[in-house]
Amino acid sequence: MQNCARTTYRLLSTMYKNSGTNLASLSAADIKEWLNSFDTVLTDCDGVIWVDNETLPHATDVINKFIDNGKKLFFVTNNSTKTRPEFVAKSVKLGFNVDVDNIISTAYLAAQYLKNIGFSKKVYVVGSTGITRELDAVGIQHIGIGPDVLNGSLADAVHNFTPDPEVGAVIVGFDEHFNFVKMMKAASYLDKPGVLFIGTNTDERFPLPDCVIPGTGSIVNAVTTCAERKPTVVGKPNKHICDILEKEYKVDPSRTLMIGDRLNTDILLGINCGFQTLLVETGIHKAADFSQTEDAELKQCVPDVYTSKLGDLLPYL
Amino acid sequence: MQNCARTTYRLLSTMYKNSGTNLASLSAADIKEWLNSFDTVLTDCDGVIWVDNETLPHATDVINKFIDNGKKLFFVTNNSTKTRPEFVAKSVKLGFNVDVDNIISTAYLAAQYLKNIGFSKKVYVVGSTGITRELDAVGIQHIGIGPDVLNGSLADAVHNFTPDPEVGAVIVGFDEHFNFVKMMKAASYLDKPGVLFIGTNTDERFPLPDCVIPGTGSIVNAVTTCAERKPTVVGKPNKHICDILEKEYKVDPSRTLMIGDRLNTDILLGINCGFQTLLVETGIHKAADFSQTEDAELKQCVPDVYTSKLGDLLPYL
Repeated sequence: MQNCARTTYRLLSTMYKNSGTNLASLSAADIKEWLNSFDTVLTDCDGVIWVDNETLPHATDVINKFIDNGKKLFFVTNNSTKTRPEFVAKSVKLGFNVDVDNIISTAYLAAQYLKNIGFSKKVYVVGSTGITRELDAVGIQHIGIGPDVLNGSLADAVHNFTPDPEVGAVIVGFDEHFNFVKMMKAASYLDKPGVLFIGTNTDERFPLPDCVIPGTGSIVNAVTTCAERKPTVVGKPNKHICDILEKEYKVDPSRTLMIGDRLNTDILLGINCGFQTLLVETGIHKAADFSQTEDAELKQCVPDVYTSKLGDLLPYL
Repeated sequence: MQNCARTTYRLLSTMYKNSGTNLASLSAADIKEWLNSFDTVLTDCDGVIWVDNETLPHATDVINKFIDNGKKLFFVTNNSTKTRPEFVAKSVKLGFNVDVDNIISTAYLAAQYLKNIGFSKKVYVVGSTGITRELDAVGIQHIGIGPDVLNGSLADAVHNFTPDPEVGAVIVGFDEHFNFVKMMKAASYLDKPGVLFIGTNTDERFPLPDCVIPGTGSIVNAVTTCAERKPTVVGKPNKHICDILEKEYKVDPSRTLMIGDRLNTDILLGINCGFQTLLVETGIHKAADFSQTEDAELKQCVPDVYTSKLGDLLPYL
């Protein structure tokens, strides 16, 4: 009976696979069967469960119900500005019943990546304390964060730059102090043989009503261009996350749901890892962005299911 | 007889076309015939005739001989940090007999581009006075150059940013004060309908012995990523320069030689415009970079002729 039920769920998940099905078009019974077809829930944070410091409608209830119902739950975020304990602090304050083992962040992934390869040198970090505290936690030295403003001429900056010979890796994440001097230093370190290049993520931007906040992808592309090298990207949509989840948490990809608001990171991660996928329309992308686009990349990022907001699931949990 | 000679020259230029011929392998008679096969000489500056403030061996003599021999000569530079008069001042100081009509710079091209389309709004400039003085010369208003450092938090910077409603274009060139705040402002202006996006050039970087100076291409790629738009690039290798040369200076592309040290800007410009091409090995690229590369882009940038330095031409002029 258990096997029979599993088979049905697998067929259902196959049925929705990359179909761009509107949740509202399904019956309550269909939705409940679909909810039973996964044991693990990965969810993006900003634009899915909260926007800045405000939770989205019923998102807290849905996440806590998933946990109460015995799902393994992970917040998977490309935000590299916070450590995992800082994410927990924010999450708990907003009512989510999570702890540090429920958080997969790019700062954590970058630090784990270096730890797992036995890295013992120093890291030049374009980023914030979100990254350096995760490096501290695994005993890896670092330099570079904080303002590094051009004082005087560029020629002076070049003259005064003495590369630290201990640097063996460059991590590029979100850095509001990013500037030409940091770009020069990152490219100079990356010109040395054997220096590793890690990018936390490639999110392009965060549009606000009157302002566009550049995403880490803009910073990574700037460094990629002048370094003439491509980074290892540890964040979504890179499959690296899946390897860690399978290895450390014994997650079964086919019985895992990835929830997100961005097609080319969240949904693409799901596709890359063989997860089921759910797009919520409270952030970057809407259904029209996969169904009515001319963009070749977005056309490949069709979710299994989409819905207007995560809270739509609450009546079925 | 004139026609017959022309036919011979055209055959010769066809013979060398994208052949990667080593000048040293040609006889003196061959070289003289090749030198007679063009009336116009376009040359890059840095890495061809000078490096910073030092002329390369016999480069001054070769350029002045070209002029004395009646060739139309143009310095074509992707450097957007100087106006044309500033280029003349530097060139004359180093012994080159040129004036403002011999200079085609990206700052000039960007200003001409806006002038030619009758642009009457304001420009947000990521760049330097090289650009703004050329805009001043054609009566176009601008904002943005100089340091624009993040003081306080990013949230404050977002809150304090009041977009200037008069801005109708963003020009991105070389800017040693480039930073996250400028990237945010550029992307925000470019998010408004109808705002033009001009990049001066896409040179990736300038490697020095212990340091890599990021090129304008790094800055342009950062803005391109967070703006989610591609710029009109006025500098090499864009064909835009050829249109101006044909229109303003009645240049015949087939009887024009483009000299440069960078395959994917200088030599590619020549290929894009139907010019003859000469690579000199005193700057970024060597013959091995087109003959022994796996890079698909560089493989397409084979010059007609290459030589170790521009001064090698002197005995034949």
